[in-house]
Amino acid sequence: MSRGYFSHIPPVEFKGVDSDDPLSYRYYDKNRVVLGKTMEEHLRFAVCYWHTFCWDGFDVFGAGTFERPWHTGVLDQDAADHKLDEAFDFFTRLGVPYFCFHDVDVMAAAATPAEHVKNLSVIVDRIEEKMAKTGVKLLWGTANLFSHPRYMAGAATNPDPEVAAFAALQVRHALEATHRLGGANYVLWGGREGYDCGLNTRMGQELDQLGRFLNMVVEHKHKIGFKGTILIEPKPHEPTKHQYDTDVATVYGFLERYGLEKEVRVNIEANHATLAGHSFEHEIQLAIDLGIFGSIDMNRGDPQNGWDTDQFPNDLREITLAVYYILQGGGFSTGGFNFDAKVRRQSIDPEDLFYGHIGAIDLTARALLNAAAMIEDGTLERFKEERYAGWKEGFGAKMLAGDVDLAGAADYALEKNIAPVRKSGRQEFLENYVTKFVK
Amino acid sequence: MSRGYFSHIPPVEFKGVDSDDPLSYRYYDKNRVVLGKTMEEHLRFAVCYWHTFCWDGFDVFGAGTFERPWHTGVLDQDAADHKLDEAFDFFTRLGVPYFCFHDVDVMAAAATPAEHVKNLSVIVDRIEEKMAKTGVKLLWGTANLFSHPRYMAGAATNPDPEVAAFAALQVRHALEATHRLGGANYVLWGGREGYDCGLNTRMGQELDQLGRFLNMVVEHKHKIGFKGTILIEPKPHEPTKHQYDTDVATVYGFLERYGLEKEVRVNIEANHATLAGHSFEHEIQLAIDLGIFGSIDMNRGDPQNGWDTDQFPNDLREITLAVYYILQGGGFSTGGFNFDAKVRRQSIDPEDLFYGHIGAIDLTARALLNAAAMIEDGTLERFKEERYAGWKEGFGAKMLAGDVDLAGAADYALEKNIAPVRKSGRQEFLENYVTKFVK
Amino acid sequence: MSRGYFSHIPPVEFKGVDSDDPLSYRYYDKNRVVLGKTMEEHLRFAVCYWHTFCWDGFDVFGAGTFERPWHTGVLDQDAADHKLDEAFDFFTRLGVPYFCFHDVDVMAAAATPAEHVKNLSVIVDRIEEKMAKTGVKLLWGTANLFSHPRYMAGAATNPDPEVAAFAALQVRHALEATHRLGGANYVLWGGREGYDCGLNTRMGQELDQLGRFLNMVVEHKHKIGFKGTILIEPKPHEPTKHQYDTDVATVYGFLERYGLEKEVRVNIEANHATLAGHSFEHEIQLAIDLGIFGSIDMNRGDPQNGWDTDQFPNDLREITLAVYYILQGGGFSTGGFNFDAKVRRQSIDPEDLFYGHIGAIDLTARALLNAAAMIEDGTLERFKEERYAGWKEGFGAKMLAGDVDLAGAADYALEKNIAPVRKSGRQEFLENYVTKFVK
Amino acid sequence: MSRGYFSHIPPVEFKGVDSDDPLSYRYYDKNRVVLGKTMEEHLRFAVCYWHTFCWDGFDVFGAGTFERPWHTGVLDQDAADHKLDEAFDFFTRLGVPYFCFHDVDVMAAAATPAEHVKNLSVIVDRIEEKMAKTGVKLLWGTANLFSHPRYMAGAATNPDPEVAAFAALQVRHALEATHRLGGANYVLWGGREGYDCGLNTRMGQELDQLGRFLNMVVEHKHKIGFKGTILIEPKPHEPTKHQYDTDVATVYGFLERYGLEKEVRVNIEANHATLAGHSFEHEIQLAIDLGIFGSIDMNRGDPQNGWDTDQFPNDLREITLAVYYILQGGGFSTGGFNFDAKVRRQSIDPEDLFYGHIGAIDLTARALLNAAAMIEDGTLERFKEERYAGWKEGFGAKMLAGDVDLAGAADYALEKNIAPVRKSGRQEFLENYVTKFVK
Ligand SMILES: [Co+2]
Ligand SMILES: [Co+2]
Ligand SMILES: [Co+2]
Ligand SMILES: [Co+2]
Ligand SMILES: [Co+2]
Ligand SMILES: [Co+2]
Ligand SMILES: [Co+2]
Ligand SMILES: [Co+2]
Repeated sequence: MSRGYFSHIPPVEFKGVDSDDPLSYRYYDKNRVVLGKTMEEHLRFAVCYWHTFCWDGFDVFGAGTFERPWHTGVLDQDAADHKLDEAFDFFTRLGVPYFCFHDVDVMAAAATPAEHVKNLSVIVDRIEEKMAKTGVKLLWGTANLFSHPRYMAGAATNPDPEVAAFAALQVRHALEATHRLGGANYVLWGGREGYDCGLNTRMGQELDQLGRFLNMVVEHKHKIGFKGTILIEPKPHEPTKHQYDTDVATVYGFLERYGLEKEVRVNIEANHATLAGHSFEHEIQLAIDLGIFGSIDMNRGDPQNGWDTDQFPNDLREITLAVYYILQGGGFSTGGFNFDAKVRRQSIDPEDLFYGHIGAIDLTARALLNAAAMIEDGTLERFKEERYAGWKEGFGAKMLAGDVDLAGAADYALEKNIAPVRKSGRQEFLENYVTKFVK
Repeated sequence: MSRGYFSHIPPVEFKGVDSDDPLSYRYYDKNRVVLGKTMEEHLRFAVCYWHTFCWDGFDVFGAGTFERPWHTGVLDQDAADHKLDEAFDFFTRLGVPYFCFHDVDVMAAAATPAEHVKNLSVIVDRIEEKMAKTGVKLLWGTANLFSHPRYMAGAATNPDPEVAAFAALQVRHALEATHRLGGANYVLWGGREGYDCGLNTRMGQELDQLGRFLNMVVEHKHKIGFKGTILIEPKPHEPTKHQYDTDVATVYGFLERYGLEKEVRVNIEANHATLAGHSFEHEIQLAIDLGIFGSIDMNRGDPQNGWDTDQFPNDLREITLAVYYILQGGGFSTGGFNFDAKVRRQSIDPEDLFYGHIGAIDLTARALLNAAAMIEDGTLERFKEERYAGWKEGFGAKMLAGDVDLAGAADYALEKNIAPVRKSGRQEFLENYVTKFVK
Repeated sequence: MSRGYFSHIPPVEFKGVDSDDPLSYRYYDKNRVVLGKTMEEHLRFAVCYWHTFCWDGFDVFGAGTFERPWHTGVLDQDAADHKLDEAFDFFTRLGVPYFCFHDVDVMAAAATPAEHVKNLSVIVDRIEEKMAKTGVKLLWGTANLFSHPRYMAGAATNPDPEVAAFAALQVRHALEATHRLGGANYVLWGGREGYDCGLNTRMGQELDQLGRFLNMVVEHKHKIGFKGTILIEPKPHEPTKHQYDTDVATVYGFLERYGLEKEVRVNIEANHATLAGHSFEHEIQLAIDLGIFGSIDMNRGDPQNGWDTDQFPNDLREITLAVYYILQGGGFSTGGFNFDAKVRRQSIDPEDLFYGHIGAIDLTARALLNAAAMIEDGTLERFKEERYAGWKEGFGAKMLAGDVDLAGAADYALEKNIAPVRKSGRQEFLENYVTKFVK
Repeated sequence: MSRGYFSHIPPVEFKGVDSDDPLSYRYYDKNRVVLGKTMEEHLRFAVCYWHTFCWDGFDVFGAGTFERPWHTGVLDQDAADHKLDEAFDFFTRLGVPYFCFHDVDVMAAAATPAEHVKNLSVIVDRIEEKMAKTGVKLLWGTANLFSHPRYMAGAATNPDPEVAAFAALQVRHALEATHRLGGANYVLWGGREGYDCGLNTRMGQELDQLGRFLNMVVEHKHKIGFKGTILIEPKPHEPTKHQYDTDVATVYGFLERYGLEKEVRVNIEANHATLAGHSFEHEIQLAIDLGIFGSIDMNRGDPQNGWDTDQFPNDLREITLAVYYILQGGGFSTGGFNFDAKVRRQSIDPEDLFYGHIGAIDLTARALLNAAAMIEDGTLERFKEERYAGWKEGFGAKMLAGDVDLAGAADYALEKNIAPVRKSGRQEFLENYVTKFVK
């Protein structure tokens, strides 16, 4: 039951592309079937709890601007309940199927391990009720191992194992809560798993701690029978100078090193991708090709600013390509599009939370239509198929299969007096092709 | 025998810290013993052939400025010989023990596979003579798989396997030449192993090609009995939009994926590190901790410009830390400090080539003295030892060893009612400590 | 008369939005009237000579890949003529009204001042004929003061005034050629007007040299009766570490300092804007607000790479906003959209030059339609009008007019016991609004 | 009178270069005379109030870690007094001559204009007493126009003039307080004077507001007889996407535009310089050459992270060059070195505040010795003098003086058949020269 913060905003409905109502969907028609599945099934949208309900609009240079009624100064059970009521009211009015949360987002603040367990348990009961009542589901849960001062030097990678023990407590209960609530995934973002100063840090030691911790999480998942996917969310830096889970390629190497590449996948955030010096679609494609693609944190950074701005996405071309690669990779299994995005701190009204989400949802739905049209057309895949055809047979196939050694390949070049005919990569043609579908 | 380009410059000698002669060493006294080895043995300096003898000072916006006498417009055998004479004269006058080269740096230009093999063979004979006469040794050889138009879409990762065959030809002969010349390492830098456009690229396919190619190289190394180390040089981009060997962590994951983590190590370039968003010392420390540290390409980028400027290093603090971490990691085995650095295109005189190298050599020698003093003092290691002591015994040790599971660690936190006492990371203290040793 | 490089490509025609012909326009219908002017009149497209006809596909890491028939190794009069023939054939087939060039792009290479004047004169005669025959016009001319080794340390800012004299020679004749050819503008991009090394540079002295030089250009313009606009093209770095004409704000200050703010305007390049840490539309809006907006170099950079990639634009949202701000500012007077863009070096076919330009032209035409629709709708301007209404009357108007001093304003706050009511900035709402028009 | 937070730390004394006491100075001997002035007179060190006494260690991802005893949750008069006591105790123990503050740093929190004026007045009385008692002086005062939610859309540039009136109130009283306390300068940093979203912003209008506001400040300064310097502190972004006072060149153009270039100077922050894509020394040299150099905010950013990290400086080479350029420019008049730097959030002990400042002070003192030695040696200036000699007489001097027009310069080149002889820029030689002095 809501307390009325959003009560003046009617449920957001699909009104078609010509709608002038800024609180309606123009593209997201959740039951519309595209490539054999409904939009809702393809896109699996989730609202994140932290940015939308916990953040008060503060930044490093200024105090909160939002004045949400549930931000009363102390995060006691009342405030947590109030927040929960409004959150589910928001989910319902927005019409998204999923949400995501950190343990400390939803619960009353706790001072001790015992209080932590208790307060989390109390709110999980209420979340369960809310979910049953509304039909809103949990895309993923996670534990916040970075905001409390105890984690200032890391959680699993802390020089003090007692801190890692506290982290284990949080993860255990967050994972069990996620399991109980039917979550489709469990995420770990290592906000303080990195370093600020190489001079006081043993990187190899800390990586071993992190590898062991992640194995403990995976083992516990199996022990309790959680069927969802364990996901790591890469980020190159911020808050720490260097985060160990830098990007998809780094996480892949880490998983290989600690024997987890079959157990753990990645939750790719757009803004983290660009902070790491990659395009969003690069990270998606790489994760697919390495077999560790899991889920998406949808947002965007500012291409001229160097920190995690977590803005709502609005680049239709970028999201069209993102959806295209995901669909080509088989689409989401347990993952989905979680909006790890926040309205700007000048966007202080309840309406603004709707504008942010509606714009992003509609953009992604539109991107789905574009991507589906490209897939049905097939030009891109045919182009690639033909471009790499030489590796499917003859010398290329043999070399790839390991049937030619270096001397053999060298001799082949010498004997055939090879002078490869270069072919245009057709980049501009292909970019124009995509532009045509971005509509 | 030189043709006289450098003949007016006397051999560079160590003249002590008070020397005012800009063509002398103030710190690099090659026979001075530091921590039980001579400076020469520790630092293993190499001059690179390409920047110093092949580059004519051109950039994307302007023509060459250097007018070296061996740059006659065509790279025929005469020009190659002339260049070789001057190069060894330079090495000798500078007094460095090593050099490095790409096949096409040293040989006359070749139009066909057969010509490539022949022209390389001719020059390798002459190099062998030069080395015997001067005592200069080969730190590493490599094949240039990026400058010729045939490689515009990659070498091993080219969509056309014939191009990969040509690459195999070059690598085979460059590796065999390196072996014959007693090279300590063989390097692969994948200048075009990446992509400019995701729309025409199958990243997974190309990674498989690259993985297979690298395995072929390793197999061939063993077949011919080369005892040196195979090294990959990471770089995040440039010339391509995205290079597959992005950074140390990415290369590690790649090596794991293709079963090569025991066979191949990394050649870390300072400028590539910073282009990838890491500090130079981060990449060194990470490579050591992952067990794949090999060698160093010494230079620096411009912190305000976003491309590979390959300048001579001049940051004493940075290089002090780099040398410190290398020494802490056991020092070089087969690797060394290769100056992959070029004088600016306004530095058009032969003297400038000396100034660039002398400054860098002396800086590194000075850094060695600083690093050795920090090691003898021991404060940094003691600080870390104490900081992580909790993981050496008790709960920490058990957790790291796999003797505690997630529930066990959580219960430990609960039962002990853990409230970890935070300790200062002492970053400023440690930074001041280093500053004191940077002298 | 063409020599046939493009003869297999039929003139590019407008075929409408449903066209599947990649060599047709889907949006650019040059005679279509939008907001009272034809598309051709609004957009004033130009092809640049340098990237499209002079560049052979080389980059810092590799040789040219394009093998244009007029790239014969020496740039003599024959090669220059051949290039000219193909260039005008390209302009004509593409159907653009304008082109742009540097002196050395079009002329045969010259070794002396006298030869420079003569060779330029010869080709300008032929350009004049070509223009008369084809109707293609000159958007702007310029002198290349950065490629020749003489300019390695700057042109007007060179420590040697003789180099500045050579620059004066080139600019005088390029300006006079532009005048004679009816050019609408004359551009100065200071490719080497900056520094690589602060230690050998007197910035204040060099700025004074540059200020004086620019005044000389403006005086000469008036002397010869040239009615076009003198434009400076800002860029923050590359090739030099720091370019004096960093960005629009910097150029504005420079013009003020040397009394030129009424005489000189800016040619804004998209890629230079983003290299300077600004969005393209920021630079446009700022130039308009400062009264120095002139013309556009249309292209895009790579958001993950840190150098000037000069790619053809493909971001419809970005270009829609760019065109919107330009139209809001009154549109071009003498300026236009020059494509300072190059196909990638893997795009080796003559077709690729067409794909690059067609995609960019069509994108901009589409952006014009989007921008016009936003202007007709008027929401954005109404929003701003209302947002700043407080400054139009009462206390705000008085303060802006200088009728309130600091004490007065402070007293006003005190006496009125001011507690300003904050209003949402509606960023997400406005971004969604734009998204709707980007189609 | 202190409350004891720092009472266990003895006054920091100069103990000479061999001192092993991390709480002593090794270089900063305040009475040591260098180039005719004491170190104290040259360097004019100041401690900033905000980072050292107001910040509790929070960041965007986590809560405060410092637990200073005066951080009691509410900033009432008691807390403000407690903070003030500890601050002056710190200044005294550290032995710096100056401090700097924002109004809201020192005063009790205020809810209304009247309360603001009163609370500021109360604390200014106490500051005055403290200053008299300790001899610590005020380098500059400023008003915080960015932290309070009222300023979320700017202060002087706010769309609502009532907010600008509140800003006027704060600035008036902060300026008058600075005057009363004998401050040497008054600083304006426009933390929210910029925009987050171009779509809701009239840049030209906001610049006019800012220009008018700054004129009001300057007029008030003269009215009250304040003899200190008004300073603007440039920054390119953060907190806003784009700050109007981007960098030195931008501020210069702004001052010219609003007729203030003789009245206002710049306070250059190292971290802001690098965020703007410039080196610290570039910004200093440019400000000197433009005649607007004022003061320094001393700190450093992280070269791999893209936000304002405000770390204590530790790069001896960078600071040596900074001090060198400042001394060459005549040294500080009213300005000084203010440490706008904060210890890392893991540096939680009172000692850490000392380590941060001591390291930075000592580094700067050491840089002063280095810079003085370079000045006494004179090589750099002689090199430049000779390099630009051609502009001192003959053709160069005439051209610079305006006695040669473009045609004249072109004819000179033609008639003399100019072929400029290029000279090496000697960058590596000069860099080695500096390296030698960095000790
Ligand atoms: Co995220
Ligand atoms: Co983020
Ligand atoms: Co290298
Ligand atoms: Co490099
Ligand atoms: Co341009
Ligand atoms: Co460009
Ligand atoms: Co500052
Ligand atoms: Co700062």
